[in-house]
Amino acid sequence: MSEQGNDLNLNALFIGDKAENGQIYKALLNELVDEHLGWRQNYMPQDMPIITPEEKSSESFKNTVNKMEDVLSEISSRMRSHSVPWHTAGRYWGHMNSETLMPSLLAYNFAMLWNGNNVAYESSPATSQMEEEVGHEFAHLMSYKNGWGHIVADGSLANLEGLWYARNIKSLPLAMKEVTPELVSGKSEWELLNMSTKEIMDLLESVPDKIDDIKAASARSGKNLAKLGKWLVPQTKHYSWLKAADIIGIGLDQVIPVPVDHNYRLDVNELEKIVRQLAAEQTPILGVVGVVGSTEEGAIDPIDKMAALRDVLAKDGIYFYLHVDAAYGGYGRAIFLDENNDFIPFENLKDVHFEKGVFTENKNYILEEVYNAYRAIEEAESVTIDPHKMGYVPYSAGGIVIQDIRMRDVISYFATYVFEKGADIPALLGAYILEGSKAGATAASVWAAHHVLPLNVAGYGKLMGASIEGSHRFFNFLNNLSFKVGDKEIEVHPLTYPDFNMVDYVFKEKGNDDLEAMNKLNHDVYDYSSYVKGSIYGNEFLTSHTDFAIPDYGDSPLQFVNQLGFSDAEWRRVEKITVLRASVMTPYMNKAENFEEYAEKIKVALQEKLEKIYAEKLVHSAH
Amino acid sequence: MSEQGNDLNLNALFIGDKAENGQIYKALLNELVDEHLGWRQNYMPQDMPIITPEEKSSESFKNTVNKMEDVLSEISSRMRSHSVPWHTAGRYWGHMNSETLMPSLLAYNFAMLWNGNNVAYESSPATSQMEEEVGHEFAHLMSYKNGWGHIVADGSLANLEGLWYARNIKSLPLAMKEVTPELVSGKSEWELLNMSTKEIMDLLESVPDKIDDIKAASARSGKNLAKLGKWLVPQTKHYSWLKAADIIGIGLDQVIPVPVDHNYRLDVNELEKIVRQLAAEQTPILGVVGVVGSTEEGAIDPIDKMAALRDVLAKDGIYFYLHVDAAYGGYGRAIFLDENNDFIPFENLKDVHFEKGVFTENKNYILEEVYNAYRAIEEAESVTIDPHKMGYVPYSAGGIVIQDIRMRDVISYFATYVFEKGADIPALLGAYILEGSKAGATAASVWAAHHVLPLNVAGYGKLMGASIEGSHRFFNFLNNLSFKVGDKEIEVHPLTYPDFNMVDYVFKEKGNDDLEAMNKLNHDVYDYSSYVKGSIYGNEFLTSHTDFAIPDYGDSPLQFVNQLGFSDAEWRRVEKITVLRASVMTPYMNKAENFEEYAEKIKVALQEKLEKIYAEKLVHSAH
Repeated sequence: MSEQGNDLNLNALFIGDKAENGQIYKALLNELVDEHLGWRQNYMPQDMPIITPEEKSSESFKNTVNKMEDVLSEISSRMRSHSVPWHTAGRYWGHMNSETLMPSLLAYNFAMLWNGNNVAYESSPATSQMEEEVGHEFAHLMSYKNGWGHIVADGSLANLEGLWYARNIKSLPLAMKEVTPELVSGKSEWELLNMSTKEIMDLLESVPDKIDDIKAASARSGKNLAKLGKWLVPQTKHYSWLKAADIIGIGLDQVIPVPVDHNYRLDVNELEKIVRQLAAEQTPILGVVGVVGSTEEGAIDPIDKMAALRDVLAKDGIYFYLHVDAAYGGYGRAIFLDENNDFIPFENLKDVHFEKGVFTENKNYILEEVYNAYRAIEEAESVTIDPHKMGYVPYSAGGIVIQDIRMRDVISYFATYVFEKGADIPALLGAYILEGSKAGATAASVWAAHHVLPLNVAGYGKLMGASIEGSHRFFNFLNNLSFKVGDKEIEVHPLTYPDFNMVDYVFKEKGNDDLEAMNKLNHDVYDYSSYVKGSIYGNEFLTSHTDFAIPDYGDSPLQFVNQLGFSDAEWRRVEKITVLRASVMTPYMNKAENFEEYAEKIKVALQEKLEKIYAEKLVHSAH
Repeated sequence: MSEQGNDLNLNALFIGDKAENGQIYKALLNELVDEHLGWRQNYMPQDMPIITPEEKSSESFKNTVNKMEDVLSEISSRMRSHSVPWHTAGRYWGHMNSETLMPSLLAYNFAMLWNGNNVAYESSPATSQMEEEVGHEFAHLMSYKNGWGHIVADGSLANLEGLWYARNIKSLPLAMKEVTPELVSGKSEWELLNMSTKEIMDLLESVPDKIDDIKAASARSGKNLAKLGKWLVPQTKHYSWLKAADIIGIGLDQVIPVPVDHNYRLDVNELEKIVRQLAAEQTPILGVVGVVGSTEEGAIDPIDKMAALRDVLAKDGIYFYLHVDAAYGGYGRAIFLDENNDFIPFENLKDVHFEKGVFTENKNYILEEVYNAYRAIEEAESVTIDPHKMGYVPYSAGGIVIQDIRMRDVISYFATYVFEKGADIPALLGAYILEGSKAGATAASVWAAHHVLPLNVAGYGKLMGASIEGSHRFFNFLNNLSFKVGDKEIEVHPLTYPDFNMVDYVFKEKGNDDLEAMNKLNHDVYDYSSYVKGSIYGNEFLTSHTDFAIPDYGDSPLQFVNQLGFSDAEWRRVEKITVLRASVMTPYMNKAENFEEYAEKIKVALQEKLEKIYAEKLVHSAH
């Protein structure tokens, strides 16, 4: 691994698990605050201060400051008593959270003092410009040639916005038939509902005077919603997709889950079957969601195969909108882009990663199917990507990217499109997005992250690498882990080889073929590794958990369940498996020596938890 | 005005227009940061720091810190060059923004270091608890007996969530007819679509085992959307209502604007006419929006009369859901609540306000019709209220409140309702709201504000009072203002007596009866009072502007246009009036001596701007 002085050192970008960089943080914070205070002081220096020294000496002033301090004290106590130590280098192995980038924290703190509102350029010239730049950076990350993006409050809303795009675009040909029939003459309703997004955008662009009338007759009018067809999401579907279908008015009855394989990735053969069956009934497909980094498994759907299927179906006159939900995994694409924003050939990937210090070891961490899936994201119409997940930016910062900037006119308000002079920044961003008022500080925060860590292999790629390598260490560790408690032997089994940086795993008592008992054991481990059993601050190992149940997952978990030694019948009886779940976001567990230090501690902590659990069992069975 | 030492002193709660309290801010900030750093250092003290002194001395570390400083420098320069001086005591008279509460800034900065995510209790125990408390505080502010509320990213989304509630609730009786017909036997479709929210909630509660099936057949399924009827919003409608109707799938074709009177308040007679006409055609009313603090005028719709109309209509079997969009004016309700959370009788209001220091002068500032409107908010099903507007909390912090906590089960996900043990906090808040991931820091920020300034006349009431009194001073100032430029006399005319704290106004050249010319003049004043003409930092008077055009406003502006001396014909010819607009949020302009100091400066600045505008006119006409 190269360690040239010009390389980015990730350890300089976090406050640190032991606040090692706390003084750097404080120094920069104070400098920035001073710059803001100076700005206030020097604004119209001819104006005298309103708050006088006399007033500041008054009783009411002092009492109010005291009151404020009391309130802040209570907040401090509550925060310190009941917060999750995401910052730890190696004791938190649960939800997708970790400490966040120092430059983002600082930029947020600083920009917040101005309280800009990015809903309108006028309310936030500086941060509106930053959000526009971030949007283009997102588009470059997806290799979109003519894309656009913006920050969204969170991934659920970005998904909803993606569905809004799909719904309104899909309805445009029907609107054209009503408003400008000559534009789509000769097309059947089926053909109108199977036009590609590009065709639709081209047609719309060809009639600039009619755009407003066509939009007014689109799905936004309330018409034709029932005609637009089905919305297909992988079986691993995050509940935000159900909410989105509910809210957008197409309805849950139109959501069809697509089975996933035993790696929890969308099964493209099943997808094709469903699509062809629907087409045979003349039911259109509104769109299909591919997930890049599923919430519970970190699985990466085969976006390449989904895009290829779309090409095949096109020959049969079938089209679907493709949205990639990369809320979690989106920043992962940086690992594949070189400093010229070109996608690195797979055969060079391992060497480039080692050379650039993405991984500390010269190993193949990235599966070729994952590589192919990432590459094909550029073929999707829209992508959800959350800076507050793998962007290591503090909450709330989600994002959406669209492939074709023209798409934004389909959901926009106001007949006259007003832009900032000399720029392509909308004067009123709120008219082009789902949300209204939004913190300018968020844009500053994401912008700071992107400008310290460019969205390629030399920037964010290194951070992604640290997380991925840490997850592989954890995976290998678990793979060889077992415990003895009394006369019981308890083995640990990871669920799948990680597509990205998530490791699911179970504890199994050897020789016990009761799946329900195993589920109970894992739930107990979770209870002892979370807030459920008291102080989080004092807990030496923390994790999260999830259930895979037949109603949602079908038989996808069966292969794993069988491997554990449970029969098909036992699976049908219990109908679910409880697994523990670690999104390995800590940036510190990539180095072997760091990991090994914590591995020992984790072992001890788990041994202790298991002993408590089995001791409790004995007590219960004695009663 | 009382000035006891125990009173809150608002001047202690802001950094100050000249950063007068900058050192207090810094001291508290550093204390809090130290508390956080100490928390990290003392977490598992047996773990050695990962980031070593050796590493911190490395070239790559130093270079990375330098890179971070470069990026922060650029952000600092951009922020200082292109931000709006909301913090000024008396030079910004435009958009609804001002400096924000110091306790909120501090709480945000602090809580952000933990990066809690309020989507789930597990990810943010401390701040989830704070959000739950804030929700109940919102409910008390609206005098809801059994209400609930939560923080939303912004008012547009809160409005969308309100419409989501209305849509899904309205559809429940149709779903009951399908799933549990015995529950609604004998009711016609018209009757089903005119049941009150309370009746519907009571019925739903009566069949606990059927709730999930009924919900599954509700509007969330995609069924019956077209049957739910019309959504009525005042003519002053914010575009967020159009977006919401688009997104929620009922469609823009179902949005009916209700005319406003010449005070820009919803005309309840017109509302009744529309409702009765729709009812005569058997078209149901999905719901009606009342606005408390319209975006462009600060107008307060007569919520009391709307609620009374609903009672009258009930006798004729007509019902509509009532949502109050108090995104802007919601916190204003604090001015009417005493310290026991009782609504202060109108006859006592003036004296209580003077006694509590809400106003510096013992005057009638609050109109009785405004008082009545605020009081009646408790009769609405849901209310939008934005802490980041009149809550003086930094972006982004919106909010929604519901009258009946049972309503949240109508939009919730997951069959099993999981709550935190011993509390009524949902384990997964994301399943009960529109959004997903959300910053815990926002909750800390709003909580801090509410706990320093309770939501009654002695807390937020004082802050509201400072803003309202400042707006009256500005109104009176403009009312008597005129300028001489060469041989022209230019008079200023405020639009209406402020319902709340907003003052719209126009410049008019005396004797010039060309409305187009007046619009141009006002647009020029705006250009010279905004970023359009260069540096905002150096501009001595800043304001915002808006247009009232016939397509949106009908003839509501005509009375004002006539008063200015323009004929009806001239109004029909030009079809719009451009007005300047000041949301007076500065908390410093309530005191007479402060205002007078700035009034002189504003006069001078405006004189200068007008002279430039008229000089340019001459140049143009000479060419």
